[in-house]
Amino acid sequence: MSGYFGPVQPLAYDPDAEGPALRHYDRDEVVMGKRMEDHLRFAVAYWHSFGWEGGDPFGGRTFDRPWFPADTMELAEARAEAAFDFFRILGAPFFCFHDHDVRPEGGSLTESRDRLNRIADIFEAKMAEGGPRLLWGTANLFSNRRYMAGAATNPDPDVFAYAAATVRDCIDVTHRLGGQNYVLWGGREGYETLLNTDLGQELDHMGRFLSLVVDYKHKIGFKGTILIEPKPQEPTKHQYDYDVATVYGFLRRYGLENEVKLNIEQGHAILAGHSFEHELALARELGILGSIDMNRNDYQSGWDTDQFPNNVPETALAYYEILKAGGFTTGGTNFDSKLRRQSLEPEDLVMAHAGAMDVCARGLKAAAKMLEDDRLEAARRDRYAGWNHPEAQAMLAEGATLEGIADRAVADGLDPQPVSGRQEILENLVNRYV
Amino acid sequence: MSGYFGPVQPLAYDPDAEGPALRHYDRDEVVMGKRMEDHLRFAVAYWHSFGWEGGDPFGGRTFDRPWFPADTMELAEARAEAAFDFFRILGAPFFCFHDHDVRPEGGSLTESRDRLNRIADIFEAKMAEGGPRLLWGTANLFSNRRYMAGAATNPDPDVFAYAAATVRDCIDVTHRLGGQNYVLWGGREGYETLLNTDLGQELDHMGRFLSLVVDYKHKIGFKGTILIEPKPQEPTKHQYDYDVATVYGFLRRYGLENEVKLNIEQGHAILAGHSFEHELALARELGILGSIDMNRNDYQSGWDTDQFPNNVPETALAYYEILKAGGFTTGGTNFDSKLRRQSLEPEDLVMAHAGAMDVCARGLKAAAKMLEDDRLEAARRDRYAGWNHPEAQAMLAEGATLEGIADRAVADGLDPQPVSGRQEILENLVNRYV
Amino acid sequence: MSGYFGPVQPLAYDPDAEGPALRHYDRDEVVMGKRMEDHLRFAVAYWHSFGWEGGDPFGGRTFDRPWFPADTMELAEARAEAAFDFFRILGAPFFCFHDHDVRPEGGSLTESRDRLNRIADIFEAKMAEGGPRLLWGTANLFSNRRYMAGAATNPDPDVFAYAAATVRDCIDVTHRLGGQNYVLWGGREGYETLLNTDLGQELDHMGRFLSLVVDYKHKIGFKGTILIEPKPQEPTKHQYDYDVATVYGFLRRYGLENEVKLNIEQGHAILAGHSFEHELALARELGILGSIDMNRNDYQSGWDTDQFPNNVPETALAYYEILKAGGFTTGGTNFDSKLRRQSLEPEDLVMAHAGAMDVCARGLKAAAKMLEDDRLEAARRDRYAGWNHPEAQAMLAEGATLEGIADRAVADGLDPQPVSGRQEILENLVNRYV
Amino acid sequence: MSGYFGPVQPLAYDPDAEGPALRHYDRDEVVMGKRMEDHLRFAVAYWHSFGWEGGDPFGGRTFDRPWFPADTMELAEARAEAAFDFFRILGAPFFCFHDHDVRPEGGSLTESRDRLNRIADIFEAKMAEGGPRLLWGTANLFSNRRYMAGAATNPDPDVFAYAAATVRDCIDVTHRLGGQNYVLWGGREGYETLLNTDLGQELDHMGRFLSLVVDYKHKIGFKGTILIEPKPQEPTKHQYDYDVATVYGFLRRYGLENEVKLNIEQGHAILAGHSFEHELALARELGILGSIDMNRNDYQSGWDTDQFPNNVPETALAYYEILKAGGFTTGGTNFDSKLRRQSLEPEDLVMAHAGAMDVCARGLKAAAKMLEDDRLEAARRDRYAGWNHPEAQAMLAEGATLEGIADRAVADGLDPQPVSGRQEILENLVNRYV
Repeated sequence: MSGYFGPVQPLAYDPDAEGPALRHYDRDEVVMGKRMEDHLRFAVAYWHSFGWEGGDPFGGRTFDRPWFPADTMELAEARAEAAFDFFRILGAPFFCFHDHDVRPEGGSLTESRDRLNRIADIFEAKMAEGGPRLLWGTANLFSNRRYMAGAATNPDPDVFAYAAATVRDCIDVTHRLGGQNYVLWGGREGYETLLNTDLGQELDHMGRFLSLVVDYKHKIGFKGTILIEPKPQEPTKHQYDYDVATVYGFLRRYGLENEVKLNIEQGHAILAGHSFEHELALARELGILGSIDMNRNDYQSGWDTDQFPNNVPETALAYYEILKAGGFTTGGTNFDSKLRRQSLEPEDLVMAHAGAMDVCARGLKAAAKMLEDDRLEAARRDRYAGWNHPEAQAMLAEGATLEGIADRAVADGLDPQPVSGRQEILENLVNRYV
Repeated sequence: MSGYFGPVQPLAYDPDAEGPALRHYDRDEVVMGKRMEDHLRFAVAYWHSFGWEGGDPFGGRTFDRPWFPADTMELAEARAEAAFDFFRILGAPFFCFHDHDVRPEGGSLTESRDRLNRIADIFEAKMAEGGPRLLWGTANLFSNRRYMAGAATNPDPDVFAYAAATVRDCIDVTHRLGGQNYVLWGGREGYETLLNTDLGQELDHMGRFLSLVVDYKHKIGFKGTILIEPKPQEPTKHQYDYDVATVYGFLRRYGLENEVKLNIEQGHAILAGHSFEHELALARELGILGSIDMNRNDYQSGWDTDQFPNNVPETALAYYEILKAGGFTTGGTNFDSKLRRQSLEPEDLVMAHAGAMDVCARGLKAAAKMLEDDRLEAARRDRYAGWNHPEAQAMLAEGATLEGIADRAVADGLDPQPVSGRQEILENLVNRYV
Repeated sequence: MSGYFGPVQPLAYDPDAEGPALRHYDRDEVVMGKRMEDHLRFAVAYWHSFGWEGGDPFGGRTFDRPWFPADTMELAEARAEAAFDFFRILGAPFFCFHDHDVRPEGGSLTESRDRLNRIADIFEAKMAEGGPRLLWGTANLFSNRRYMAGAATNPDPDVFAYAAATVRDCIDVTHRLGGQNYVLWGGREGYETLLNTDLGQELDHMGRFLSLVVDYKHKIGFKGTILIEPKPQEPTKHQYDYDVATVYGFLRRYGLENEVKLNIEQGHAILAGHSFEHELALARELGILGSIDMNRNDYQSGWDTDQFPNNVPETALAYYEILKAGGFTTGGTNFDSKLRRQSLEPEDLVMAHAGAMDVCARGLKAAAKMLEDDRLEAARRDRYAGWNHPEAQAMLAEGATLEGIADRAVADGLDPQPVSGRQEILENLVNRYV
Repeated sequence: MSGYFGPVQPLAYDPDAEGPALRHYDRDEVVMGKRMEDHLRFAVAYWHSFGWEGGDPFGGRTFDRPWFPADTMELAEARAEAAFDFFRILGAPFFCFHDHDVRPEGGSLTESRDRLNRIADIFEAKMAEGGPRLLWGTANLFSNRRYMAGAATNPDPDVFAYAAATVRDCIDVTHRLGGQNYVLWGGREGYETLLNTDLGQELDHMGRFLSLVVDYKHKIGFKGTILIEPKPQEPTKHQYDYDVATVYGFLRRYGLENEVKLNIEQGHAILAGHSFEHELALARELGILGSIDMNRNDYQSGWDTDQFPNNVPETALAYYEILKAGGFTTGGTNFDSKLRRQSLEPEDLVMAHAGAMDVCARGLKAAAKMLEDDRLEAARRDRYAGWNHPEAQAMLAEGATLEGIADRAVADGLDPQPVSGRQEILENLVNRYV
């Protein structure tokens, strides 16, 4: 035990607590036939909570953790100790990590891999003691300066190869630790300026890289899901995995739409100009909804703020879309959220997560109630009911033609009258649940 | 002749003119082996220049044109007269229109079609006299209240049918007038709130509608290109044809990627968070670049401002991408640009177009010179040169595996070093041309 | 009675109602020693609810009200009848209007004034029967094309004079009807392009105009507050009353900071890049908080969406700032909110307001509880407690100098250590109330 | 000489050069009666060009400079050597720095001051040899974690005192080096959340701090200008010095509007939702235009991108406003611009500045020509000519009343007709110069 967070005692569920507690998230409470823990599948993000030092573009480290700077294996081990204490305090069933978060990079691919495996040994032991499971692993292909112009899309083929080796190692470790998914976030797969970029070639290389990853997954028998995490920009001017729709087109282009799903982040959705629920609903309809990175972006800050979720009406709409998709399978709710850099204390880290878990639990419960009560869905079905008529279905069926439909419209003297969309009434309805 | 613009005298090309003239656009000047007119293929947009009355959400008509309100066929004819005068003054080789712009809607589909044909008769006669050709026609499926909840994506199947009949008539007229393309802009194909929307069903209906249109085009022997015009939002909260990448995925989903191309608008690109050149380059690489709507959006106004293009460095980058694609085939440069509502005079309309033509001509000439000088492309090729090596190509070839590449990276002890991207030097280079 | 809304029966407060009701807003419930009605001082906006026809930049009227188009006095009277029915159904204690909303403009200033007075006669009679009071009146100085280049800031001095006459008449009517405030919204006081604008001269004219208004108010004995409503842009590229801070500087420049307060709108705050609570808090600290326009802007639509408020956590933070200011005096909560244009039915209008009233009531009650419990304020006081020390106060007192403070800092060997800002813990705290 | 940039040979002015040269900036060319060097007063920013390591929120240092990490005095001296070589190569007449850029912070205020003075000794010697002059100095009150919650606005009064001591030392050094201005940029003077912030108290402290600075300046006889640099947000959620209008109100509130001017940055203007020329014009009209930070923000990246200026039409409009103000007095053009992090080479740094100087020179020359030709100003004067009439002036003169103006408007039967604003024609006019 690290001692950093004081005595390692799981946070209790206590709706009426004055002090630190979970007020809404009771992991064993059954919602729509499933325990909340199994619905929400919370994961803690190693990077933000144990790797991020509190810096921003205008200032350096503010956090004073005993494991900083984690540039030795000893400090990396101390960090792991603290992290698993933290997981236990929260009672989080999952965690997620990049290679880069858990060990200092070595002087060579081999040394980096060895270090990763040494930390994985520690993780394995901790996990065997009832620690959390691994929601997903991933490789950091963006921080090192070798990746400044991309990993799979780097103009230098050696970087492509280097990235391939790194991902191989990270999938191996993820597989060994029983990871439920493997994520690719292409933070540098994009460009700073079109002037020096061959867009078509870079897209092809990215498609190629992903195919190699998919093949490898099958070869080693990894049963987890390969996930892409969309983001529109930052740090780059443009990122190829812009949003759900863009990634869908990309997957179709390279024939991967049945192999790869998406890890969708609230903050990234907002940066792309979409609501979180839009991205979730679209991914569901396209059959590529995988997992979520839960956080909140300041709608008025044009960069990735990764705040802890704090608005219940918003989380309710997000979980509503997820419940409509049948809930998570391999996916879960990863808190890709970081403390504000002024939140210095261990208590801040604990309470930020506890608050977020409660906000998600309130959202889930409201969403479940909405779905069970069926008023919203009934209104939606009603709105489209006209399409159940045979004449309407015929327009969608094989054999229909534009001119045939047109002629009928003329013949019938169609003059369709608008019907209220009832948006405010539906918004009021939602407000009865949140 | 309408007399509205005074004597109908084509604007002369005169670089040194004090008064109204074209200072940079000499239609017969040969650029990269082609006359500028044949490169740029300018079109005037009927709606903004002859239909729009100068209103905005906070005030009504400011323009005092003799043909307003064009709610009778007489006024519609007066408008056509003025429009063709204007086309001749500008020497524009093309124009574009919606059904809605050229005739008042009738009381029935039949009457609307008849009216459209009566105006088309006038157009046909004018065009035969050497008036401009038709770059594209389109149907307005967004202004009438029947379309408030969408056309192809309307919850009411009768609206789908009504829209089908309207599009049929508009394609017929476009075909008859020798239109080079037919455009679909789905201004209402989207949603105001997800709460009342069945995203998946609406997308399927939209895919279906487009397939019907493509089939019809072939049936009647229309040789023009079917174009979709992306826009991310406004008037809706979300529009399905969000941007180039989104439409590409949509076309793939419904098997239409070889049948349909894109009409890309500068202002819509910006509203979607992209540069215009990004959208053009991406469409080119995806094989779906069709035509452009040239205008300029205020980067700081969050709605579609449709200003006339006025920044040469920007138009140069746009035409650079178009020239790299081999130039337009059926497409062209449509000025989907409107006067500011305080620009009341006929002279404002003429000079706004003349200025825009000059800005485009300057952009085209700069782009052509850049391409011919080949410095930018040489730098780009150089940056990716490593990929020409056999070892690099092997990674992309069949048979390569992630583990194979990884093993080689380890064996070779790869340690790729970053190379300058030279962005500022390339930007300086561009500035030597614009 | 208009009959438009069915039987005129006030909405009941009934937390458990299945059908239409107020579920949270019980006007007589006492919160922090005051009835909720007296806290919230709800007002209905005549323009959005009775004047707006459902148009947007891409389509015209969707609403089918019997009083549209209200271009005759008869229809204006029918509209008034319906409006007062509506006020009674809602039980709204206030309403607001522009001259333009309530009567068609006449052919001259005199005729416009006469028409305004005729409608005011009707209002007066209705109000005497126990109808709502007037929260504020205002003049529409933006819709008519004469104002296209501004009212007080128009390059044409005749427009300045015309606007002066119009405002005089509107203040007179507001005074006569017992209005609690008079509002100026400068929708066209700004510019489309700096190229044709004399910024300094326009600002001076605007300052002058406001001084004239203030003088007039005193002369006629109008006891209400003169309010400016900030907005950053739309319809203009730039509006002079950009935000709270800008208007404060403007008032200081023209010596009006003790005469004029602000009417702050949520949507306008957002368009200016601020949270609503920021604008409220700043206005309070600057002593110019007057009244609010309550609505919600879509954070991702770059124009004024004027949606009904629907997010309780947000309204709670807004009313928190208002309660900290001691609540409204002459101000109130005006619903400057409009139906989505697909919400066609009378029921939509009623329920949109009812939902908004409930959202505000929930916000107010949460805010009051937070303030009474004092945890948030205690944390804030604690954070600044160091400033209560004499040495700290001395730095702020007369006689302190930079060098004196610097010398002391050196002498004391100051090395201040950062203290947690506890943001997430405070956000969690708020979530216990909302 | 550092040798880092190769032989230290000033860049020549040579419009036809193939290789590195200044193609438009001829320092001795006379524009509107003044040498270009004296107009533009270029300064190099020490921090971006010699302090910034190429990191971003997702990756660390990319630049491989021999003086990194400059955490010893030896490296700081090596850095100074390289910087002055660079200044000579560019022929820049000015430079700017923060204390933080030029020396590693010491363990105490005294040690930090001593180190600053040791570097200043070096600067002094270099400057005596004909090196550039100091445009302005400033203190970095944002990078060290002690400032994470603000400097003058920190809840901890010891931080206020610490900042005071630091600024005292920086003004002293600026004074000693003959600095023409002293700048305050309040990067942390703002808040992350209103929940823990006392807005009013913080503003008062900030006003107090600025007053102390102004008093000190006078006491030591520093003749330079005190400048505030506005920025709306980033790193904070909200920065108090939001934009020009906000700072003006702040200065008025604390009686400092005649003592302090503004250093206006293009990128910050854009982040605040304004065009650069707007901020410049407004500052001019308010009498607080001081100096500029020249760069370019990507309009579509919501953070401070600090790119080198590269769009001539934009710089022309900026210098037009500056020329209208009579040009710089103590101010100048500081390149607060940084290389893209992929631009690794010394040549990138040189050419980025050279390109920027040329872009500014082109802008200045175009602006001067526009002003001399007077067409734009003639059009503007013409637009407001009505205000020269005695009747118009009377409305602005003492004694005029709202009712008097109103009565005259009625009596004269005013019916003002709109006049074209000619925006496109004016934009075309500008395009004839750029």
